[in-house]
Amino acid sequence: MDGRGSSPVTLEEVARRAGVSPSTVSRILNGTARVRESKRQAVERAIADLDYRPNVMAQGLARGSSMSVGVITQDIASPFFNESLKGIEDSLAKAGYAPLFVSGHWKKEKETECMSLLAARRVDGVIVLTGMIDDAALLSYAARLPLVITGRNLQGTNVVSIQANNEQAGYDATRHLLDLGHTRIAHISGPEVNVDAQDRLAGYRRALTEAGLPVEERLITYGDFHETSGLLAVNQLLESRLNFTALFVANDQMAYGARLALYRKGIRVPEDVSIIGFDDLPSSLYTTPPLTTVRQPAYDLGKIAGDAMLGLIQGEPVSIPHIPLQVIVRESTLRRRGP
Amino acid sequence: MDGRGSSPVTLEEVARRAGVSPSTVSRILNGTARVRESKRQAVERAIADLDYRPNVMAQGLARGSSMSVGVITQDIASPFFNESLKGIEDSLAKAGYAPLFVSGHWKKEKETECMSLLAARRVDGVIVLTGMIDDAALLSYAARLPLVITGRNLQGTNVVSIQANNEQAGYDATRHLLDLGHTRIAHISGPEVNVDAQDRLAGYRRALTEAGLPVEERLITYGDFHETSGLLAVNQLLESRLNFTALFVANDQMAYGARLALYRKGIRVPEDVSIIGFDDLPSSLYTTPPLTTVRQPAYDLGKIAGDAMLGLIQGEPVSIPHIPLQVIVRESTLRRRGP
Repeated sequence: MDGRGSSPVTLEEVARRAGVSPSTVSRILNGTARVRESKRQAVERAIADLDYRPNVMAQGLARGSSMSVGVITQDIASPFFNESLKGIEDSLAKAGYAPLFVSGHWKKEKETECMSLLAARRVDGVIVLTGMIDDAALLSYAARLPLVITGRNLQGTNVVSIQANNEQAGYDATRHLLDLGHTRIAHISGPEVNVDAQDRLAGYRRALTEAGLPVEERLITYGDFHETSGLLAVNQLLESRLNFTALFVANDQMAYGARLALYRKGIRVPEDVSIIGFDDLPSSLYTTPPLTTVRQPAYDLGKIAGDAMLGLIQGEPVSIPHIPLQVIVRESTLRRRGP
Repeated sequence: MDGRGSSPVTLEEVARRAGVSPSTVSRILNGTARVRESKRQAVERAIADLDYRPNVMAQGLARGSSMSVGVITQDIASPFFNESLKGIEDSLAKAGYAPLFVSGHWKKEKETECMSLLAARRVDGVIVLTGMIDDAALLSYAARLPLVITGRNLQGTNVVSIQANNEQAGYDATRHLLDLGHTRIAHISGPEVNVDAQDRLAGYRRALTEAGLPVEERLITYGDFHETSGLLAVNQLLESRLNFTALFVANDQMAYGARLALYRKGIRVPEDVSIIGFDDLPSSLYTTPPLTTVRQPAYDLGKIAGDAMLGLIQGEPVSIPHIPLQVIVRESTLRRRGP
């Protein structure tokens, strides 16, 4: 791709221009042998002059590598996962790897299909973002290629798990509302099968229990992590005439829906009802009012996953840093008024 | 990837199980020759029983194809582009192609790099979503591999352009506000170099002029298509004490920022100021109030781009359907009150 003609520059042309043998160019590109400094400079100049781009795919295949990493995301249009994808992309780019994104659509069968697709494309490893495939199947994949998985704790060779403490974060979110004097706190959880959602719910229960408050099951509803389900959950809570002054919502997208449901009924946020979300999506800074939420470092999570994958591919030891989840107080939560 | 062991099922095993020769299996998979129906059924049963997955990459490379299509998006975390990515993904999947996503980050040099990266990976074509690379460079790429590009009108062999009429849509958005009685309409445009932004602005000017109203240059400000720039633009308009009762914002993300800026000043939407955005992002249904906007069929756009690419790769004639842009009236616009 040099923009000057229809055929790409070859390694031989670079060698000719630099006045060295093609194998010297190859050795310099691969860093496999020492080459005299003057030769190196001549080759680098020739590469620049000709705008030579090595055929990454052919080089990789010669080494048994496609220089790509499969990434199974759940939804290519999810604002949360896409922050992570950006982090993965940036991490892999450092080492010349490209991500190959495919969507599992929150379905186990679809994810299994994605795995096969990626394996057929000879990816060098697979990163699974909060997948639904079961642990045993994942371990069997890991026998064949390096695996990085977020949102669960899976131990094995060739596998790295990245997990934040969602239980503690669910506790912290609920604690924030308790600290503001709220005692009637409803919770909109995620899909019942989702581990992150389960953990956040467990944290909610623990915070209430530790505060000496009863856990009222009717104040707990379940959504699917999309906006509409948050809206429906609030409508359901309001219809059942349950009294609550605060809402802990298991992700920001559902919190947007919940907020709109309250707006439609003329219930003010935060004056009448406080809301805390989870994720800290970029747009949560711009809701009215800006959303108090738990920040998940989605971009950093992607970077950590990408770095871990590079470590596995290169056979280096991998250590996962602590993933901080932090309550970000904005304007959707307020001290409870009245008695 | 059959989950039963550590080595994938081979074509030879399928042949053995079906009681046919490996070349028969190969012919059936490639559809290159007629095979007796009983043999075909035996092979298909063996493929299902063994959960055999052909090595797509090796098959593709044998034909000189990597079975992948490069997609240059501007921002892997953009909610608008990601709807399109989903459409591209779904379209390509039908034909067994996988997308390889890379981000240009709105930079010409970065996009050129992406092009080289994709070419080195032997993609079968490249889809560019609203790129910054100039037309001449694109045409030179198209000499080597099929190219589909959105957001501009580029004619050439091996190139398909997909373009919606942004000028007309900008006109329609402004017309909607005029029809509600607004005459003081401010406009927040996108980056001055962006063709879509230029066209929407041109439509705004035409609508005002046709309505016999002056185009007041001070009511036109420029953002970068992100939320913060919409917020800053409104602050700037308010500080300059210009009188306006309606805002046409060149994309939804900036409209969110604009809406928050008004909220901060206690200016009500839509009672005091009407807002119309552009794109109809999924979350625009959930802003308070839900945003009136111009719907761009982002997902369909991606599907059309993917289908066009498959047509180019397969050497079939490609025809691009009309891309409808439509004003979606929700609750952020209202008839102007008072004199």
